[in-house]
Amino acid sequence: METFESRWERYRGLVEEGLEHFLPSEDEYPQSLYSAMRYAVFTGGKRLRPVLTLATAEAFGSDPKLLLPQAVAIELIHTFTLVHDDLPDIDDDDFRRGKPTVHKVFGNAIAILTGDALFALAFKVALAGSLSDSLKVRLLREINNALCYRGVIEGQVADIESLSKEPTYEDMLFIHTHKTGKLIEASVVIGAIGAGAKEEEVADMRRYAKNIGLAFQIMDDILDAVGDESKVGKRLRKDFNKASAVRILGLEGARREMNRLVDEAIGTVDRVLGKRGAFLKSMAEFIRSRTY
Amino acid sequence: METFESRWERYRGLVEEGLEHFLPSEDEYPQSLYSAMRYAVFTGGKRLRPVLTLATAEAFGSDPKLLLPQAVAIELIHTFTLVHDDLPDIDDDDFRRGKPTVHKVFGNAIAILTGDALFALAFKVALAGSLSDSLKVRLLREINNALCYRGVIEGQVADIESLSKEPTYEDMLFIHTHKTGKLIEASVVIGAIGAGAKEEEVADMRRYAKNIGLAFQIMDDILDAVGDESKVGKRLRKDFNKASAVRILGLEGARREMNRLVDEAIGTVDRVLGKRGAFLKSMAEFIRSRTY
Repeated sequence: METFESRWERYRGLVEEGLEHFLPSEDEYPQSLYSAMRYAVFTGGKRLRPVLTLATAEAFGSDPKLLLPQAVAIELIHTFTLVHDDLPDIDDDDFRRGKPTVHKVFGNAIAILTGDALFALAFKVALAGSLSDSLKVRLLREINNALCYRGVIEGQVADIESLSKEPTYEDMLFIHTHKTGKLIEASVVIGAIGAGAKEEEVADMRRYAKNIGLAFQIMDDILDAVGDESKVGKRLRKDFNKASAVRILGLEGARREMNRLVDEAIGTVDRVLGKRGAFLKSMAEFIRSRTY
Repeated sequence: METFESRWERYRGLVEEGLEHFLPSEDEYPQSLYSAMRYAVFTGGKRLRPVLTLATAEAFGSDPKLLLPQAVAIELIHTFTLVHDDLPDIDDDDFRRGKPTVHKVFGNAIAILTGDALFALAFKVALAGSLSDSLKVRLLREINNALCYRGVIEGQVADIESLSKEPTYEDMLFIHTHKTGKLIEASVVIGAIGAGAKEEEVADMRRYAKNIGLAFQIMDDILDAVGDESKVGKRLRKDFNKASAVRILGLEGARREMNRLVDEAIGTVDRVLGKRGAFLKSMAEFIRSRTY
């Protein structure tokens, strides 16, 4: 029987193959760019976002492989945002998943351009595959909405601005739902739309995704406050001066809010997908219990 | 009668309207991001690239307004590349079109994120408008090909790398045809495809665009060497340590090469479009004679 872990591994295997397929070889010119792109992408990450896409598609009865280009595009976009966020001018992080960040290895100029190139590649990849052009346009619009005009980038800007003030609960909510939440939302929603889910089902899956996205980021804040740096693989105790849920709600308040979100997410999937939603329910439980 | 200048103004007016329509208002949150996006975009630029799109579309019998979203997308992408290239970590330029660059006004972090946001917005805009989804996908693929995997970003990386060696003619050609040429090529080609030009016509227009793109960048090198800083609006005499056509071919050699490219471009348009190509031929002449 396929366990939660073995199913995650199956999806992750597809994602790794897809990334390998779409990323330029580092033998090609200019090597520094392609080496940096591959360095940024192949870090042994969990691939949470594309796994959500493939799992959602399969839950709605689709062959997950049909959505692989779009899932890979989501992971490339996620990686691009990490490369730029880690830059000295933004979050100034030296480690990511236990390895030196791209700018530490390749320099700031190449890191900026590597982010740009991963972003461009994401849109190229999102246009690949065998879906109809209309479906591609619809999914691309959904992915793009995650980015700008109330998206990940606005969340990052609000995060930077929160450093110069006493952040409120509303600031924290805006930052978390945009910086982290929007791309997780798109990951789930494109899986549902791509598999032909009905409009109400798509709306329900959007609600599920919003809940787990916010829960994921609150857990990030909890791990930042009480986690083990060697497990998490990045510098901790650094977000406490930002709009951290732990700063604003306290450790117990943050845990309570996270549990509420996870319970609601599980309830939604249970109602929409029943048994077919087993993996997505386990994913919500994973977010609640993760230590890295 | 419509002169070259008044026709350019007509196209430019459409582009300005399109940009105004698609850019978020700076009253919205987060203001710093939207202010910086608007600051980067509304600089009184010539709008060469989107003007080429609209002019090519009209030359092939289309209403240029049909291609306006895609033309605006090209200008947003061009602006994004300028904002990132000007950063201290890359070209470190303080002035652009006679005004302080985005990072000088808004800081490096906001400048990086402004470039990202303009890039994201470009893809959103390219999906707008009334063209069919299939045509949108085809044009988006063409725009995207200009960027990565042998595109603008590779040209910029090669440009940075050329600083640490004695650049050859081949280096110069790679940098110029990618960093500058690719987006000019896409501008023309999407105009032709969008207007329903035949495959051979598209191929001819691609040749025209490649020629004027390279000629444009050689003229940039000539202006960098002998131009008037107050007219050009940016710091000059700075590219001579790079893969400049003037450095590699000499001033006269660069002029000769530029003239050859412009003559060939005019010949191509003349053959394909005859009188309908008047504006595009004048554009090639403009590139030859510009002083800013």
